[in-house]
Amino acid sequence: MSDILSHLRDILPDAAFRDPAPSYLEEPRGRWQGQALAVIAPASTAEVAQVISACAQSDTPVIPFGGGTGLVGGQLAEEGNPPVILSLERMRALRDIDPVGGTMVVEAGAILEEVHNASAAHDLIFPLTLASQGSARIGGLLATNAGGVNVIRYGNARDLVLGVEAVMPDGSIYHGLSPLRKDNTGYDLRHLLIGSEGTLGVITAASLRLFPKPAATGAAMMVVPDPTAALALLRLAKARIGEGISAFELIGKTGLDFLDEVGPETRQPFDARPEWCCLIDLGLGEGQSPEDALEALFAEAFEADLVSDGVIAQSQAQRQDFWALRENIPAANRRIGAVSSHDISVPIAAIPEFIARAPDILAQIGPFRLNCFGHLGDGNLHYNVFPAQGASAAEHHGSRSAIKRAIHDLVHELGGSVSAEHGIGRLKVDDLERYGDPAKLAAMRAIKAALDPAGIMNPGAVLRQLP
Amino acid sequence: MSDILSHLRDILPDAAFRDPAPSYLEEPRGRWQGQALAVIAPASTAEVAQVISACAQSDTPVIPFGGGTGLVGGQLAEEGNPPVILSLERMRALRDIDPVGGTMVVEAGAILEEVHNASAAHDLIFPLTLASQGSARIGGLLATNAGGVNVIRYGNARDLVLGVEAVMPDGSIYHGLSPLRKDNTGYDLRHLLIGSEGTLGVITAASLRLFPKPAATGAAMMVVPDPTAALALLRLAKARIGEGISAFELIGKTGLDFLDEVGPETRQPFDARPEWCCLIDLGLGEGQSPEDALEALFAEAFEADLVSDGVIAQSQAQRQDFWALRENIPAANRRIGAVSSHDISVPIAAIPEFIARAPDILAQIGPFRLNCFGHLGDGNLHYNVFPAQGASAAEHHGSRSAIKRAIHDLVHELGGSVSAEHGIGRLKVDDLERYGDPAKLAAMRAIKAALDPAGIMNPGAVLRQLP
Repeated sequence: MSDILSHLRDILPDAAFRDPAPSYLEEPRGRWQGQALAVIAPASTAEVAQVISACAQSDTPVIPFGGGTGLVGGQLAEEGNPPVILSLERMRALRDIDPVGGTMVVEAGAILEEVHNASAAHDLIFPLTLASQGSARIGGLLATNAGGVNVIRYGNARDLVLGVEAVMPDGSIYHGLSPLRKDNTGYDLRHLLIGSEGTLGVITAASLRLFPKPAATGAAMMVVPDPTAALALLRLAKARIGEGISAFELIGKTGLDFLDEVGPETRQPFDARPEWCCLIDLGLGEGQSPEDALEALFAEAFEADLVSDGVIAQSQAQRQDFWALRENIPAANRRIGAVSSHDISVPIAAIPEFIARAPDILAQIGPFRLNCFGHLGDGNLHYNVFPAQGASAAEHHGSRSAIKRAIHDLVHELGGSVSAEHGIGRLKVDDLERYGDPAKLAAMRAIKAALDPAGIMNPGAVLRQLP
Repeated sequence: MSDILSHLRDILPDAAFRDPAPSYLEEPRGRWQGQALAVIAPASTAEVAQVISACAQSDTPVIPFGGGTGLVGGQLAEEGNPPVILSLERMRALRDIDPVGGTMVVEAGAILEEVHNASAAHDLIFPLTLASQGSARIGGLLATNAGGVNVIRYGNARDLVLGVEAVMPDGSIYHGLSPLRKDNTGYDLRHLLIGSEGTLGVITAASLRLFPKPAATGAAMMVVPDPTAALALLRLAKARIGEGISAFELIGKTGLDFLDEVGPETRQPFDARPEWCCLIDLGLGEGQSPEDALEALFAEAFEADLVSDGVIAQSQAQRQDFWALRENIPAANRRIGAVSSHDISVPIAAIPEFIARAPDILAQIGPFRLNCFGHLGDGNLHYNVFPAQGASAAEHHGSRSAIKRAIHDLVHELGGSVSAEHGIGRLKVDDLERYGDPAKLAAMRAIKAALDPAGIMNPGAVLRQLP
């Protein structure tokens, strides 16, 4: 092992070696503690290739590391040979931006917020938007095919990428950055690398799609009687406003109650916390008024008994208040302390059935409070289980696997996914084996063995490491 | 060889066996003549799996066959062991449609036009649109990641697919039809199969994304002085109309002249055939007027000297005339008789340079007429080379490979693709080897060997068949 380290010391400048600080070895919720042979932050794709080549020749595991914000343990290994943590933090250059073509080439270490700002300077947007955008890096966002709140309109991370540059497990460099909109020359290596969580190579740069900035944005919160009505409201909004819907979020009462419980700082639009409400965000073209569109939607939905109350943002400040409410819910969850949290998706039409059936199933395990919120337009719910008021999460520790199993079984029965947007990492390897399609798993294992025969790339993530 | 045939006769009903009619063995331009051990049209995914299993066990090549409209020889093999032609024509069921979720599950043999009609019945659209939509089948369209005229707004075929069902090269069935918008559970087999041209498996069904039908559509043709102005017009249109642009086509004068030469039936909007013009198609939301948007665009572009003349369709009939003009150009090309035709793309900003440089390079080879038209918004040009007026294509037959090489070299120099939307098939295997990224080619070969170790799936397409 010291051989590889001294070899790396020989071929890389001192600046590439970082202190193995706790930030590289802990995940955001503090659930796992990783290990590291070394933390290396190359300054260029060529240096990344040197590191991977050296690791390939010495059978040293490599874990590519972005912003460290992943929630499924993809970025750290508790077990096995200590890995080289390969951090992309020093590769954050904006290599090129083409406002006419609507493309940007950026290195993997760029922080999402930096990409947002660089796009905005040209009146364009890069629409990937999520809570961790101040620290998540492009490479990690692509490796995990991140989702977020604008998927309903713009798709997942993979849909926002025209090409990638990557270092393959043998140290060769895949030059796939071409920003072409149409390029049918062989298998789509880009989409294979995106979402493979660093197990098939390291993304070092990407060509991103930029979009015109909507001329006018607006938002509303509307109270619905139940999830079925929320779905009907979504359908009506799609029919009336079409692609102008940038986000459509469902929020349950527990989340609003949590905001009250953890502190008074979140402004809430409804005095009586509604059982269910929707946050609708629009981005429209010139000459269109989001306020008018939302008022017309509310009026028609009210006539049809789909909504009983609503507030349309009268300013960008009020729109930001709505979003702050939505984005403070995960922080409130952490302060309350979840027994178990679940990032799941089901076919959109099955959402009401899932929400109706899950509480009864969980009640058989224990007395829980359930906080259900998420991206209704994508069928993606964050379904989080909390102890009854006054109790602590620790009391229910023994029930965690039963809860997870019950929820995942129901999701699977409804044709859903046990990892909608967070990925498999190390946390859900068992789930993938249990619920995954056998032909897909066989193909995944064959591809992993073909591209990374020594098994050095993020071993144990996504697929179980063979002994 | 007769062993496998008699085995297939034993396990499949008579209805699965088709006459090996010429339509299975010729491509649309009559350039190649394929061979067939048998033509088999299974009625179900289970029957497809039986055929593939039997072929895998006997090392019999299989060529999946859709509508037979491909232009690069992916659907027929002149050389090698005679293959089983596996036609999906009997599997064309619409299995499910979910208007709320905006998804449709359809079998691979469904014709694109049938999918359009089934979507329209729910006021939705499936936006893939191309000239062969009356005969092209969904399976082939996905296997080749088809493009077409609406890519600027809705993406290529792969962007319109949420999941696929496929039979893998060992006969196992991949059940990946789930219509989830978010599903991060392992490698994206869907995108690996899409665009692999039947070399990694047979797509038997797909979950397609449907979109709201735009409330109002309209079109205009505008005369631009040169391709640089066309690009500036595109940028202006994107800034003013954003996602409302459904298509943005560039048409050169030669195409308009060809329409005049082959017959009088195509109505042309401009008496003097312009050197360059653009066909712009819009689909807008409720309360918006495409005519107003196009008039405002024209006025602003005229002020900026980007356009000199224009016609805005005053009716759907006139809009259809514009599109008939655009879609009659390929037919006129065939009647005139091309020496060589090229489906290429370059980064959008490089289009003027390509169009400026290509004629001089070709003039060194011979006196040609050049018909350049295509999907400007995607950087995708159909660049077709014709004999001088009065000469015949046959006279230039000897120059074809020099022409192809010259054009492809220029495309490659500009960072473009030698197959924008038609794929590699058997026609461009050499080009892929010449211009493809070595790391990508190595990964493709490793994946092919891992998933199809016997090499039975469409052998010789995309990748050279190893001896």
